[in-house]
Amino acid sequence: MKPVRVGICGLGTVGGGTFNVLTRNADEIARRAGRPIIIEQVALRSTNPECDLTGIKTTNDVFEVARNPDIDVLVEVLGGYDVPRELVLTAIANGKHVVTANKALIAVHGNEIFQAAHEQGVIVAFEAAVAGGIPVIKSLREGLGANRIEWVAGIINGTGNYILTHMRSEGRAFEDVLAEAQALGYAEADPTFDVEGIDAAHKLTILASIAYGVPLQFEKAYTEGISRVTAEDVEQADNLGYTIKHLGISKRTEAGLELRVHPTLIPKERLLANVHGVKNAIAIMGDAVGPTLYYGAGAGSEPTASAVVADLLDVARDIATDHHYRVPYLAFSGIGEDEGNLPILPMEDIVTAYYLRLLAVDRPGVLARVATILSEQGISIEALIQKEATEGELVPIILLTHSCREKHMNEAIRQIESMADIAGPVTRIRVESLDEQE
Amino acid sequence: MKPVRVGICGLGTVGGGTFNVLTRNADEIARRAGRPIIIEQVALRSTNPECDLTGIKTTNDVFEVARNPDIDVLVEVLGGYDVPRELVLTAIANGKHVVTANKALIAVHGNEIFQAAHEQGVIVAFEAAVAGGIPVIKSLREGLGANRIEWVAGIINGTGNYILTHMRSEGRAFEDVLAEAQALGYAEADPTFDVEGIDAAHKLTILASIAYGVPLQFEKAYTEGISRVTAEDVEQADNLGYTIKHLGISKRTEAGLELRVHPTLIPKERLLANVHGVKNAIAIMGDAVGPTLYYGAGAGSEPTASAVVADLLDVARDIATDHHYRVPYLAFSGIGEDEGNLPILPMEDIVTAYYLRLLAVDRPGVLARVATILSEQGISIEALIQKEATEGELVPIILLTHSCREKHMNEAIRQIESMADIAGPVTRIRVESLDEQE
Repeated sequence: MKPVRVGICGLGTVGGGTFNVLTRNADEIARRAGRPIIIEQVALRSTNPECDLTGIKTTNDVFEVARNPDIDVLVEVLGGYDVPRELVLTAIANGKHVVTANKALIAVHGNEIFQAAHEQGVIVAFEAAVAGGIPVIKSLREGLGANRIEWVAGIINGTGNYILTHMRSEGRAFEDVLAEAQALGYAEADPTFDVEGIDAAHKLTILASIAYGVPLQFEKAYTEGISRVTAEDVEQADNLGYTIKHLGISKRTEAGLELRVHPTLIPKERLLANVHGVKNAIAIMGDAVGPTLYYGAGAGSEPTASAVVADLLDVARDIATDHHYRVPYLAFSGIGEDEGNLPILPMEDIVTAYYLRLLAVDRPGVLARVATILSEQGISIEALIQKEATEGELVPIILLTHSCREKHMNEAIRQIESMADIAGPVTRIRVESLDEQE
Repeated sequence: MKPVRVGICGLGTVGGGTFNVLTRNADEIARRAGRPIIIEQVALRSTNPECDLTGIKTTNDVFEVARNPDIDVLVEVLGGYDVPRELVLTAIANGKHVVTANKALIAVHGNEIFQAAHEQGVIVAFEAAVAGGIPVIKSLREGLGANRIEWVAGIINGTGNYILTHMRSEGRAFEDVLAEAQALGYAEADPTFDVEGIDAAHKLTILASIAYGVPLQFEKAYTEGISRVTAEDVEQADNLGYTIKHLGISKRTEAGLELRVHPTLIPKERLLANVHGVKNAIAIMGDAVGPTLYYGAGAGSEPTASAVVADLLDVARDIATDHHYRVPYLAFSGIGEDEGNLPILPMEDIVTAYYLRLLAVDRPGVLARVATILSEQGISIEALIQKEATEGELVPIILLTHSCREKHMNEAIRQIESMADIAGPVTRIRVESLDEQE
């Protein structure tokens, strides 16, 4: 059968991996696709020592690929927003299918891109944009298609998980492990995207759209990083039976959808709590299937390439017919209409449990006052640890609460921080059960 | 768009769940499929109190569904071999697509069924046949399609995992927990299929075909159950840092494919070791993606229905075109030719590590003789525990070996069992690393 001709734009980590996987496993891939998938052209800024480009047409102009009439599918593995957006829209306008690994592009410009692709009747596939090599988009979009999805929660940033894993196993401070991760190449020189949760929020935005059939709304995601998680919080959480993970969480409630990325205490026996280092995992709860979980490499050259090539296989099978997109880009038709209109809730309306750490003057009545403030906001306490202190010193108080609305917790914290006997700000970390045994 | 009309054959646990999920989530499913999926007819022997059949056409003859011109897809959820085989072949001959949850049918009669379906140009889908609601067939067949699969290992029988979980957590005997599982409905009155590994071997056979592109060869799978695992083995494994799980394992080696179901010691920190109760999980190693894992409910009414309906969604999308099978039934074209010809290795040619438990007379020289026998077979010892014994009593010796070929272990065990100072048969349980952190 006629081969599928691919143009790869970018020959960095992911582009190089894609080139090598397509080359090395060409026979196996052809047996799966029912036709060969061949690399017609590669656009690159500089050579990649991992890749042998002998006999491959190259260019340093990515737009040449988007306009090349010999190319069926453009693979966008550049990263960033602006050039990729223009490149992908140009490829679509030229009738090319597109496979991208670019989570920022899809989360921020996806609605526009899918509209353009729909009008041109081309496929835009993006499995590699979320959790690298884990086929979670396919699982959520197709494998769990029978289900009303109740929640999605995942470790979807490997850098953050690497840092939290080592903070926990070695009792070290955030800055210390971050510096090590940077030295090892697991964290960027500017780690903001990863440790402040922006990267995870991009991925969560995409997962939520596919889970619930709503438009991409990255601007409404709540994003809180892990840079303020301390070694003491990690230790206290452990004492209480919890592990701190940086999770992207999206839940369906009657009022709307929660969409939030933040450090989270989860019971340490959860599979998610036992996902270590740079690995990723996503737990998904469906009304029929119950809890499921997907685990694997969330980044890296060939793991991400695995997802890019899986998308190429889907494209290869689909364009064997005149059927130009098999599954809606975001899993559902009618997004933004009727049932696709569930609003994203503001953060103050989410409901969750909390871990609180306060520093108090060790004086009678302080604890009673804290408990009263919480109680007045309708918040009940599940556990409390007060360390012994030397007379007159500040003593840490650790609290676990039952679930409450975030706005009530905000008010309680405001009042607690205004107490004369409380020093400094209250540390607040959200707590989730995410039971995968149900 | 024109609805897809489904006929459900069987209204037991899975059929009832399929009926209810299709009914309850009809709107969401239609938004995903791009068209409604409607239940046109149900064939049943007796009513299911969970299902409201008001307004549904029913019959007690499943073959009526297979010949009904108003039906596009037949859902086979009867179980067993003979009637389902005839039913599915009749449906195919009548141009119907088929969705089945029947692992025995696919593992034993799949090659014949796929050939008939290929000739008729119809789809046969069977996601529900392996690991219930976990979309592992789709993940392996499509999501990991870029990879050369190196191994697959899974907890793919919930009954067996329930029994081993409780043997471990409560130190109880196999028979005791089995009786409890039967009382709770987690095990059949005749538990042979589950506890002797036949059910797991059916599922493993299917996974291996999809992983490596070889024909279904259930008759070549090695099957060993968990009925001889003792509370003492569970405890000794735990002392050595291992958990015993009943795994289906298939590995690609240079000589061929391993295909085996047996109790297995795995390091207790593995995610697979932390899959409890009736849950299932499958770890899959690909050359590009590295290790991945898929977790969820492996059985039950609505979890299995989730997979049946996911297949119906695939069928609904595919038959919107004239493209009558999107992915080869077993993932690859050319099965049984060239690269699809990898042989299944006989058990004596597999390579693995071992846990051995012997009962020896506590006399000088016994251990030295055992070590010599192992050494003469090229087997090296990784760990050894010898319990203290009262003079003249039998003492248990626990050994962990490094990897060796099974035939060498068979010979070593034969020689050890023939020693005068060794009482009774040697207990042998295979040990696998299955590292998901690689």
